[in-house]
Amino acid sequence: MLSAFERLQQSLKRLPGLGYRSAERLALHLLVEKPESGTELIELLKEAVNSVHACPACGNLCEGERCDICSDTSRNPDLLCVVETVPDLRSMERAGAYRGRYHVLQGKLSPIHGVGPEHLNLESLKSRLEADGFKEVILALSNDIEGEATCHYLQEEIFSPLQIPVSRIGFGLPSGGGIPYADATTLRSALDGRRSYD
Amino acid sequence: MLSAFERLQQSLKRLPGLGYRSAERLALHLLVEKPESGTELIELLKEAVNSVHACPACGNLCEGERCDICSDTSRNPDLLCVVETVPDLRSMERAGAYRGRYHVLQGKLSPIHGVGPEHLNLESLKSRLEADGFKEVILALSNDIEGEATCHYLQEEIFSPLQIPVSRIGFGLPSGGGIPYADATTLRSALDGRRSYD
Repeated sequence: MLSAFERLQQSLKRLPGLGYRSAERLALHLLVEKPESGTELIELLKEAVNSVHACPACGNLCEGERCDICSDTSRNPDLLCVVETVPDLRSMERAGAYRGRYHVLQGKLSPIHGVGPEHLNLESLKSRLEADGFKEVILALSNDIEGEATCHYLQEEIFSPLQIPVSRIGFGLPSGGGIPYADATTLRSALDGRRSYD
Repeated sequence: MLSAFERLQQSLKRLPGLGYRSAERLALHLLVEKPESGTELIELLKEAVNSVHACPACGNLCEGERCDICSDTSRNPDLLCVVETVPDLRSMERAGAYRGRYHVLQGKLSPIHGVGPEHLNLESLKSRLEADGFKEVILALSNDIEGEATCHYLQEEIFSPLQIPVSRIGFGLPSGGGIPYADATTLRSALDGRRSYD
């Protein structure tokens, strides 16, 4: 029978990004070094578990009927940006370069991990495309084989039949990145994505 | 006014070893990706907050009247190993090389961080030394200036007056460590700690 401390440590260890040592350190912090932080975390987690859910329209985090982005009338209603996950959406928002709507797929197609189209948030994507009259879709999926396959699937099955213009975000050298530090795949993407210079 | 999600993220960010991104990732995992892990964590934290406290004798984690080590009668009652923190004690236990008792100081002397003798777990150390008849004390404090100062203070103020034999753990090249990878201070400790070879 594990002690309460060990059960807590094991549960923390299962969280993303935490290993044995960091889970031990967190558990000690929450229980011994700063016990008030343990009590605070219980309260905040309870509150968040009860109030946060996925937005029924776009899949973003949401504490009411629609998420902040879906209910923001100042955003461009013509543009829809499709992302894989909520962290991706939040990174796009932090960049501050996009003012349209989003749709969160909650993953990408991955036969190896057993993720098929039925696991993605596609039903509401279809109904939004039919009802909301978007004029352009931007695919902001990752630059890997699974992202590629997902884009291909979406284009064939969803966007093409509806004849909506679709683009995919650019790939290449990251900002501040020098050629010597870029890997071969990035350089290949950069060459493929070259634009006429004038 | 912050949302419940942001309040949770900020509370996670204040925990040791977590930054903005890892706190966001954890919060999303606990609320959206695996909501059952959020509920589980609430339960385990509550349980642990209510049952785990510092052992009144040695300062180790404890869920009853005395910790597992203090109440284990099979351990050598003559040896006392003084460590800074509970993680230090747990590392010593994992190494499996010591079978005596422990005393956790809950820190080390550090004038820069405002930690004086009054902040360390010294009262119960003194009463244990007087009552429990230890025959040897091993100082397992860190190999830095503050560890050094703490050892010096303990020796002058506590151990010397009681005439208890005291040793400090060895310093030098770590196991598997090659000379070229050791920093200058380690090599200096290793030279200082040389032992006759026969």
